Amino acid sequence: MGKVVTFGEIMMRLAAPGYERLGYARQLELYFGGGEANVAVSLANFGVPVEYVTRLPENELATACVRELRSWGVGTDFIVRGGSRMGIYFTETGAVARPSNVLYDREHSAIAEIKPGMIDWEEVFAGADWFHWTGITPAISQGAADVCLEAVRAARKQGLTVSCDLNYRKKLWKYGKPAAAVMPALVEGCDVILGNEEDAEKVFGIKPDARGYLSVCEALKARFPQAKKIAVTLRGSINANHNTWKGVLYDGKRLYESCSYDITHIVDRIGGGDSFMGGLIYGLRTWPDEPQRALEFAAAASCLKHTVPGDFNQVSVAEVESLMGGNATGRVNR
Amino acid sequence: MGKVVTFGEIMMRLAAPGYERLGYARQLELYFGGGEANVAVSLANFGVPVEYVTRLPENELATACVRELRSWGVGTDFIVRGGSRMGIYFTETGAVARPSNVLYDREHSAIAEIKPGMIDWEEVFAGADWFHWTGITPAISQGAADVCLEAVRAARKQGLTVSCDLNYRKKLWKYGKPAAAVMPALVEGCDVILGNEEDAEKVFGIKPDARGYLSVCEALKARFPQAKKIAVTLRGSINANHNTWKGVLYDGKRLYESCSYDITHIVDRIGGGDSFMGGLIYGLRTWPDEPQRALEFAAAASCLKHTVPGDFNQVSVAEVESLMGGNATGRVNR
Amino acid sequence: MGKVVTFGEIMMRLAAPGYERLGYARQLELYFGGGEANVAVSLANFGVPVEYVTRLPENELATACVRELRSWGVGTDFIVRGGSRMGIYFTETGAVARPSNVLYDREHSAIAEIKPGMIDWEEVFAGADWFHWTGITPAISQGAADVCLEAVRAARKQGLTVSCDLNYRKKLWKYGKPAAAVMPALVEGCDVILGNEEDAEKVFGIKPDARGYLSVCEALKARFPQAKKIAVTLRGSINANHNTWKGVLYDGKRLYESCSYDITHIVDRIGGGDSFMGGLIYGLRTWPDEPQRALEFAAAASCLKHTVPGDFNQVSVAEVESLMGGNATGRVNR
Amino acid sequence: MGKVVTFGEIMMRLAAPGYERLGYARQLELYFGGGEANVAVSLANFGVPVEYVTRLPENELATACVRELRSWGVGTDFIVRGGSRMGIYFTETGAVARPSNVLYDREHSAIAEIKPGMIDWEEVFAGADWFHWTGITPAISQGAADVCLEAVRAARKQGLTVSCDLNYRKKLWKYGKPAAAVMPALVEGCDVILGNEEDAEKVFGIKPDARGYLSVCEALKARFPQAKKIAVTLRGSINANHNTWKGVLYDGKRLYESCSYDITHIVDRIGGGDSFMGGLIYGLRTWPDEPQRALEFAAAASCLKHTVPGDFNQVSVAEVESLMGGNATGRVNR
Amino acid sequence: MGKVVTFGEIMMRLAAPGYERLGYARQLELYFGGGEANVAVSLANFGVPVEYVTRLPENELATACVRELRSWGVGTDFIVRGGSRMGIYFTETGAVARPSNVLYDREHSAIAEIKPGMIDWEEVFAGADWFHWTGITPAISQGAADVCLEAVRAARKQGLTVSCDLNYRKKLWKYGKPAAAVMPALVEGCDVILGNEEDAEKVFGIKPDARGYLSVCEALKARFPQAKKIAVTLRGSINANHNTWKGVLYDGKRLYESCSYDITHIVDRIGGGDSFMGGLIYGLRTWPDEPQRALEFAAAASCLKHTVPGDFNQVSVAEVESLMGGNATGRVNR
Amino acid sequence: MGKVVTFGEIMMRLAAPGYERLGYARQLELYFGGGEANVAVSLANFGVPVEYVTRLPENELATACVRELRSWGVGTDFIVRGGSRMGIYFTETGAVARPSNVLYDREHSAIAEIKPGMIDWEEVFAGADWFHWTGITPAISQGAADVCLEAVRAARKQGLTVSCDLNYRKKLWKYGKPAAAVMPALVEGCDVILGNEEDAEKVFGIKPDARGYLSVCEALKARFPQAKKIAVTLRGSINANHNTWKGVLYDGKRLYESCSYDITHIVDRIGGGDSFMGGLIYGLRTWPDEPQRALEFAAAASCLKHTVPGDFNQVSVAEVESLMGGNATGRVNR
Repeated sequence: MGKVVTFGEIMMRLAAPGYERLGYARQLELYFGGGEANVAVSLANFGVPVEYVTRLPENELATACVRELRSWGVGTDFIVRGGSRMGIYFTETGAVARPSNVLYDREHSAIAEIKPGMIDWEEVFAGADWFHWTGITPAISQGAADVCLEAVRAARKQGLTVSCDLNYRKKLWKYGKPAAAVMPALVEGCDVILGNEEDAEKVFGIKPDARGYLSVCEALKARFPQAKKIAVTLRGSINANHNTWKGVLYDGKRLYESCSYDITHIVDRIGGGDSFMGGLIYGLRTWPDEPQRALEFAAAASCLKHTVPGDFNQVSVAEVESLMGGNATGRVNR
Repeated sequence: MGKVVTFGEIMMRLAAPGYERLGYARQLELYFGGGEANVAVSLANFGVPVEYVTRLPENELATACVRELRSWGVGTDFIVRGGSRMGIYFTETGAVARPSNVLYDREHSAIAEIKPGMIDWEEVFAGADWFHWTGITPAISQGAADVCLEAVRAARKQGLTVSCDLNYRKKLWKYGKPAAAVMPALVEGCDVILGNEEDAEKVFGIKPDARGYLSVCEALKARFPQAKKIAVTLRGSINANHNTWKGVLYDGKRLYESCSYDITHIVDRIGGGDSFMGGLIYGLRTWPDEPQRALEFAAAASCLKHTVPGDFNQVSVAEVESLMGGNATGRVNR
Repeated sequence: MGKVVTFGEIMMRLAAPGYERLGYARQLELYFGGGEANVAVSLANFGVPVEYVTRLPENELATACVRELRSWGVGTDFIVRGGSRMGIYFTETGAVARPSNVLYDREHSAIAEIKPGMIDWEEVFAGADWFHWTGITPAISQGAADVCLEAVRAARKQGLTVSCDLNYRKKLWKYGKPAAAVMPALVEGCDVILGNEEDAEKVFGIKPDARGYLSVCEALKARFPQAKKIAVTLRGSINANHNTWKGVLYDGKRLYESCSYDITHIVDRIGGGDSFMGGLIYGLRTWPDEPQRALEFAAAASCLKHTVPGDFNQVSVAEVESLMGGNATGRVNR
Repeated sequence: MGKVVTFGEIMMRLAAPGYERLGYARQLELYFGGGEANVAVSLANFGVPVEYVTRLPENELATACVRELRSWGVGTDFIVRGGSRMGIYFTETGAVARPSNVLYDREHSAIAEIKPGMIDWEEVFAGADWFHWTGITPAISQGAADVCLEAVRAARKQGLTVSCDLNYRKKLWKYGKPAAAVMPALVEGCDVILGNEEDAEKVFGIKPDARGYLSVCEALKARFPQAKKIAVTLRGSINANHNTWKGVLYDGKRLYESCSYDITHIVDRIGGGDSFMGGLIYGLRTWPDEPQRALEFAAAASCLKHTVPGDFNQVSVAEVESLMGGNATGRVNR
Repeated sequence: MGKVVTFGEIMMRLAAPGYERLGYARQLELYFGGGEANVAVSLANFGVPVEYVTRLPENELATACVRELRSWGVGTDFIVRGGSRMGIYFTETGAVARPSNVLYDREHSAIAEIKPGMIDWEEVFAGADWFHWTGITPAISQGAADVCLEAVRAARKQGLTVSCDLNYRKKLWKYGKPAAAVMPALVEGCDVILGNEEDAEKVFGIKPDARGYLSVCEALKARFPQAKKIAVTLRGSINANHNTWKGVLYDGKRLYESCSYDITHIVDRIGGGDSFMGGLIYGLRTWPDEPQRALEFAAAASCLKHTVPGDFNQVSVAEVESLMGGNATGRVNR
Repeated sequence: MGKVVTFGEIMMRLAAPGYERLGYARQLELYFGGGEANVAVSLANFGVPVEYVTRLPENELATACVRELRSWGVGTDFIVRGGSRMGIYFTETGAVARPSNVLYDREHSAIAEIKPGMIDWEEVFAGADWFHWTGITPAISQGAADVCLEAVRAARKQGLTVSCDLNYRKKLWKYGKPAAAVMPALVEGCDVILGNEEDAEKVFGIKPDARGYLSVCEALKARFPQAKKIAVTLRGSINANHNTWKGVLYDGKRLYESCSYDITHIVDRIGGGDSFMGGLIYGLRTWPDEPQRALEFAAAASCLKHTVPGDFNQVSVAEVESLMGGNATGRVNR
């Protein structure tokens, strides 16, 4: 199999430690993260060759970011350097009834100022068979949306499978066009679509009927008939520490449902959806004829992500498979 | 509206980090806290002009304490300096069946040696319309009790609303008089009384009958007929990490009950009652004709306090109202 | 009463902080721990005179270990120094469905290279009336097994009560003999045997029948008729943060069951079984005619251990008795 | 005496801990700092009433910044809120031959987008008798330069003494005008000018002749005859840990020189020049007829700044005077 | 040889980390220390059997203190428990021209309230041959002075060698008697006296004449002819990071001088004098006929103390002897 | 140019923080380091393609080590996995007269058990033109010595330039053969030899005559005539914080001397010699005809290493060249 390519923005995450509030903290923990980079790291941890493409400025922090990606085994050869800053996001971890909070400082980032032609997609996609993007990229700027479309078209032309995560973020989409105007052309090039109910409604106006997520899957399939797989993640938010989590997968004929995880003591849920996507891509590539297995892998992988600090899902195939196999008791390995 | 004045002791809190035991820790986290200061910070965070009065020694640590109060927007102009030390309390955070532990080292503090006349209450209360004190202050020393009574009388004379939190602490009250001998004269000057069932019993010998907290409210009202509002907080201690929490408010006619919060992953419950009082004062001042709303604000505010490290309730009106409005799912804000 | 002697390996534990993964951490927290040392510290904290015997190399880290033991009041006069290294184990703390992980680096440790004759057991046991060992020691090496047997025989000869914890560890037992070949001769010298269902099966091939742990107790008693007490711990692993925990005690006639603890927010479960054993030895010595009380003490002590970071159970008799007395609500002591 | 007003940009400073390199650090220490804010904090620590004016966005981090300023006793009532981000600068601390490094991420900050009219200078200057600005502000953007000029003119009109620190920063001045084109009109409004030799050359093309800093002072005085005092700081950079430091003051007639400090173990030199300015303003106000004393105060204050982490000079008048009095031996106070 | 006994106050030391100022720190590092305890730990580290006597309250922090002493091998069997608090001292570490600062909060400590008869000196001194006290103890309170005298007399009666460190602290001596009134009776019982020039002047009015420290030694010897050895430490304070350090020893006939150490990068100088005393006692006991060697040992030991954080001198005889032997180059041991 | 290959042992370094002693620390900082890996990271930071070869076990910590190497851009494709543990070394940082200390726990490491044939050198050296090893590797075990010789011979056969650092470590060489018996055959295959005076004496019995290091260079050249370049580093150890540092290079005809650096505030000197070697290899490759320039690059690079925590020299060519160019003042870059 060839390599997977993902493209998008990676930011510096500066997190208040423990449950401290952002406005009180005097130390911040530094991570790097972004939807598409998170997927790339998941895949690298699963042993899949993967290349991450973005635009970063020429400074020590961006170099540290490249170094971090490289440490996980993600290819960084096609990251272009330029622009004046990398995006930052500040986080505080919520507890019980106090939600986690994200404060973006990502405007004017290197990737927000990207333009078509800056990346040689033909070269990037040589040796690749899968391309993944998310709805965050076209939300950043017109330039980012243009390059994303450029990439999707190049990928299709070169015969890659294309996947996307709709990932609607209402704090973005500020450059003058709504998601509804930009996303369809992009999603029309996708073989695999991941979203949740809110994404489907906010981006495409698809509201669930009484049949719930099945109806969402069907509506997405009807709107994007080229898509072979539609996946939806379902998060039950009991409180900031306790969620339930599962996913479903629709192939136009049948709806597969993963088992549901009761995540009672969340460590870090940022990157949860991305870890699902990473698991799903791994699963669909590894067991193309076993959609239930691929889906369970995605659900188990992302269940584990909720227990790992930072955006990246630092787990192995063996760990995911152990959980898929029913070992959810958390007994000490010794 | 005028400003609120609170008066009492503020201590240095030295906390063992995480779940470490006090007898093992090699680093201690430094906070400042005390019942009346906690109420002052709550009010300042809600945008209420507030002045905190106490007595502190002339040293770097007491100055750091003043600085901390000032950072939150609490007025510190009437803090008198003198005496030789500030009180300290050491804490360790309990877990499951191991209770949190508080070790006081507060004897001989500057405020324990306060004397009537040291504070010019007339000047302090200029421009104020509310005075708040708690049962901790008269428990410290005869001098502190005397100054507390001096303050209550001055407040009433100048027409301020007076509130108190009974706050019975059995480790205090060591200077020769029991709470029962000192508190009545003070509480007789109060318009708003907050307590819990233990306070009512220990201070006034009021035991709940079969009707429970309603009977406590009625008995307090009967004992202190001048009080317009009686509030009681109800904590269900499932274990050190998991409590339930609600409050009731009685106006002599009707008993209002707040919704009950299930606080499954407590971060820091010290200051919980104070944050309820801060919310209640805010609520009663903001919505004087909506006791249910004022009560719900108090309950929601103090629910959030349980998720914030340190004694102070670092939350805004918007955050409290979001929770009051039913947003308790802890979903990430992004 | 005389002193208690325990013998085994103590290792340096290097723990990834918080919920960080071992492969990511840049700082490690240093503890010392080992089954028999953990029992010794428990007993010292309960006021029992106790001596810990092991073999450690001559270096700063081993000296730090001795210092740590001494700080808890454990006697270290019979620790022999020699060999080239002390064992290390690395840990990461699991969460929810991700299990805690232990990575051993204990081969070639000083105690693995111990030989009969290196310890003067007659001198060690002077003034002692109880000897405790665990199934970890004979699993380390032939030499360690030989010395363990030497100790058991000397203890019996000098009239001490002997207890053991079966403690089967499948990652050990690598020197050519299975547990089943080595353990019987050792356990035949024991008056008190502690194990769990897995131990009984792995070491002696005893599988529970429909009567569950009662059948295990009976089978162990049948196999080792000299044993006056058989204890079994029962852990229910809901997930890595949430376990249930109880113990049973069988005296050949009657099966005593402790109350069951619901440990919803585990801090550190390593050393849980050892803290049970420490509590049981204390209980059996203190209340020889009250097996239920001894058992409840053991269960309560080990419930508390789950709330304390590190291997050692840093709790007092008063704290255990408070929990035995039903005070499990975790209310703040103030 | 009236209050002092300072105006400029305050940024979040994110510092790699210890001597770690920025590209390696996983935790950053958070401070707030900026030339004019640093001067304001110095003055507040010396007991001078002071108001700091800037523009900050409406978010938690900017609020934390206001809180920090308030904690030091700096007035924040005229800070205007708006814009989308606050400036950030990242630092790493150099050692020996490795210089400290500053990485700016301050473009598009709230104050970079300030416009004339946003601040009501007449109101700000009511009750004030001194205004201070630095050459950093007009370097940020045209708008910041315009508002700075607006402030200087308003200050002069209202009869305030105006001081400035030339503070040339070559990484700024990117909006199309050189310092030489913008600064003269601003400096022409100043009564007190601080600079170093590099500033004088880069901004006004003044190069020292053989008489060194005296010639610089004279040239500045010739160029800005309205200035009553010209001060120059002289840093000798032996290496990143070891500097010498002194200042001179010229009143058009005589050149005063401070004693020279040998700062052999620098803790944090950022804010060194600002602490000199803060000391000088304090000195000139307190001892208007004793320029040598004022200068020595400035030099001693800034010597001490080099020993305090963060941008702010956390020292008192008593500490500065103790050093001025010759107590430089660093003996323990006990 | 017999054991050494030391008696005095041990406090909790709460230190601002790094070079942070006390009024800014949010975390404090916890150590335990006190002149006589520091001497005891030095001796224990040199392999000398030593017993430390004090009075401490019954609480977790005092127990932690006992545990810390025990970890170093210091005997704690004669520590009496009682009183309500242990003394605390807060420290911040100075740099260059900013002195280190000590803020005491030690009034009302358990030992300040000690009374004659509370300690059974006859029992304490059984098996001992040396008793050490310092001038801090009689400075605390009348009771502490009384017990100190009680101890000195008992020691002499039982034939022990008695040593003292004059240790004048001007912030103490507040209970109504000056040092000059209390110290002579105590020092008259001493065989070995340590002081510095300031101590000699402040306690006994002895000022050096032109011959400097030799004259001080002679004057002390003249005043206390029973003393066999007079030692004086000489600290040259270049700045807070850089001191020179040496000691002299006078036996009534000859003045021995140690080599002088240039301590260019001090880590923690608190406990420096105590480590000299610990070294001197070790030296005088080990090489009774080699005063130069004993003195060099003391000087080298205390030179090393300046490189170790905390009050205790964590060094071995081998390390001290290596430095005495001239190995001062700090080359890595590997 | 081709790539550089280095081969040797990389260990986990666990360092006591700050100036804490190893026997006291409760937290250890984790780095990875080893002579040949340090050279590889230096080269990667200078932009040279480099491959690092070693043997590591299959566990999380070894994987973390590979990840760290990869993050710096070092090739890890030829690292073989196997064996049971990776070597560890514990460090404490000395100060002034207290030397830094290294405690090895590296026996039985994966590379100590390496055997000839485990690495396919022909494949490793494809595309390479330089091979570097150090005297540490043959000191580990017979197997490691054998594989080192295997590598040197393969390198020569494939026409690579071979360099070595003599690096004599007396705590190693325990497997039965002295350095003098093993090293000659290895060094005979080298084109570039680095050592210091101690190495030359301990390994080859070469003592400097009156001409000092020139005589050492000449003697090494006479002994190993095939060597084109002999380099010697010269460290002056003033104390643990303050060293002088320079290097010389001899080409058989002329002795080049670098400027000498006065490193007054060392941060971490471990890896200093390796960073010199890394700089020298870079210099000799980049400026083959400018030995003085290559030497100055090596000296400046290693001067900077002393200011960076950890074993790796985290500096760029630009930083080294800035220092070579005379910019040693440590002025802030801003």
